[in-house]
Amino acid sequence: MENKRMGKRTIKLVNSPSIINTATIVGPKEGDGPLREYFDIILEDDLWEQESWEKCEKKMQEEAIRLVLTKANLTENEIDYLFSGDLLNQIISSAYAARQISIPFFGLYGACSTMSESLSLGAMLIDGGFANNIICSTSSHFSTAERQYRFPLEYGSQRPFSSQWTVTGCGASLLSSSGEGPYINYVTTGKVIDPGINDVNNMGAAMAPAAVDTIMQHFKDTGFNPDDYDMILTGDLGAVGKSVLLDIMDSQGYDLSKVYDDCGMKIFDNLRQDVHAGASGCGCSASVFNGYIYSELKSRNIDKLLLVSTGALHSSTSTLQGETIPGIAHAVSISNFKN
Amino acid sequence: MENKRMGKRTIKLVNSPSIINTATIVGPKEGDGPLREYFDIILEDDLWEQESWEKCEKKMQEEAIRLVLTKANLTENEIDYLFSGDLLNQIISSAYAARQISIPFFGLYGACSTMSESLSLGAMLIDGGFANNIICSTSSHFSTAERQYRFPLEYGSQRPFSSQWTVTGCGASLLSSSGEGPYINYVTTGKVIDPGINDVNNMGAAMAPAAVDTIMQHFKDTGFNPDDYDMILTGDLGAVGKSVLLDIMDSQGYDLSKVYDDCGMKIFDNLRQDVHAGASGCGCSASVFNGYIYSELKSRNIDKLLLVSTGALHSSTSTLQGETIPGIAHAVSISNFKN
Repeated sequence: MENKRMGKRTIKLVNSPSIINTATIVGPKEGDGPLREYFDIILEDDLWEQESWEKCEKKMQEEAIRLVLTKANLTENEIDYLFSGDLLNQIISSAYAARQISIPFFGLYGACSTMSESLSLGAMLIDGGFANNIICSTSSHFSTAERQYRFPLEYGSQRPFSSQWTVTGCGASLLSSSGEGPYINYVTTGKVIDPGINDVNNMGAAMAPAAVDTIMQHFKDTGFNPDDYDMILTGDLGAVGKSVLLDIMDSQGYDLSKVYDDCGMKIFDNLRQDVHAGASGCGCSASVFNGYIYSELKSRNIDKLLLVSTGALHSSTSTLQGETIPGIAHAVSISNFKN
Repeated sequence: MENKRMGKRTIKLVNSPSIINTATIVGPKEGDGPLREYFDIILEDDLWEQESWEKCEKKMQEEAIRLVLTKANLTENEIDYLFSGDLLNQIISSAYAARQISIPFFGLYGACSTMSESLSLGAMLIDGGFANNIICSTSSHFSTAERQYRFPLEYGSQRPFSSQWTVTGCGASLLSSSGEGPYINYVTTGKVIDPGINDVNNMGAAMAPAAVDTIMQHFKDTGFNPDDYDMILTGDLGAVGKSVLLDIMDSQGYDLSKVYDDCGMKIFDNLRQDVHAGASGCGCSASVFNGYIYSELKSRNIDKLLLVSTGALHSSTSTLQGETIPGIAHAVSISNFKN
């Protein structure tokens, strides 16, 4: 059998899984931001006629999955697997959405790296001939995350400037063995990297070293350099993490300044919308990638993208027990041209 | 490319991924049960010199991964992926264990179905040529699960007879593209099935319909019947769920009584050890499969096994918000003979 492995941690996909369609649903604040025109559905409030924010987040995932099926003119019976996850304890948004939809379900937890984790696994299963169509989906919701990880919203806790604003948003990608692109060509899988940060209001810095590690490994494994990409896009490092990443990459001899951006710096107008260091959450890279970036790929404004969703793998229990915050980042290389 | 799909939800693995070694670590109560001789390490207490039960659970995963490497005479550099997950919020046992070990990490959440979820994905990635060696690992810990899902242990909450006892245990499997078996030959992936049960002390009944759905689909997709297996083994249905499963299967024309068993009914002496309806937890099927059952496969007392780990996909938040408990079950068909 052909060896599909390149270097230490990269897979070259030879059967070119194609992202044939996407769907995005975001909250009102995200809909008021600079990417508003790229989202399929913008909610008028953060409950969407549900009894709780958690039920709203579950509805967002369910409806995004149904929407991407409708857009691709496929039914759930034609989908082989659903890969999804979210930030909530026991990934209830994903699990309860999957309950409503009759698709074999692999639940993931990669914190905010889940979008590229799901694309990595989905692309490999299609490339290996195990599936024809796979949906990858993930979500986050400001109000469910805030009360689970931090404080009750009613408490009105003050936010330090390094803190980020969890995106209320969901994105779903439909991968297929047939289709005309954009194609997933390479997958570089992350290791858990812990820089020793224990400030839960500075997650960008906690995640940046994991993103650096994965991006550098991708370059080493493939022989690519930053100029080979039109865009290298991390998930949710925000202002602090973005600056940390550029500094470390520069010190390692890689100038990413011309091609690098972060989903967490694109979805909000940080100053006007008062989100401090930018956006975060599974739904951040999910809605930015499946909305704005997918549109840019389809219109050929971007031809080659390295998407590197980034996750912080702590919990409120681990923090209370004195643990630092480990990060992880998974890279998928997406192009309008087949391998 | 050869179509590896059989029927609606089953994969036939043609390159025969092999489970070349396993490791198990369990707590003192599990070590006092009928399977004691099959575990690699039995802890003397449930803290293992750590400051918290959560840190103990993380150490169990880390040490089980290190132990399976030692037993297989491999190093972490020779392992392509680690698939793991657990029951704790944000799967901290798995993520913090992965931090200690330099292996690319895919975090999973399938509740107590995680062992067969990880074996499913690991086997497909090896079969597809994406990896040579993969470790699949999962854990649970009675005391971490009890205080996260139910009540503080100090509260001394009374347990109804349908309740199950979360296993303190961890199991790790090392899958390889080479090796002399046992082989993973088929993978049938579960859908989320919700029978409408809202009693968190009756999870066996909540999960049984998902196990029925996956087992019946496996038979339909492959053409096998119960007699083709030496053993069909669910993860943690316990006394109530086991009886529900046998009843439903019988009503559908499948007599499983001769070959069916449940890990949750094997690890404890239910009466003597006062565990009511049996055992549960990710670590239940993980430690029973990687300990006792793997030994039975190697000694040829079992030649063909269908392992069906079962998960309940709720959280304490979803329960408080009035949701019922959905279940999921993933099946892997394991044999001493290649496909």
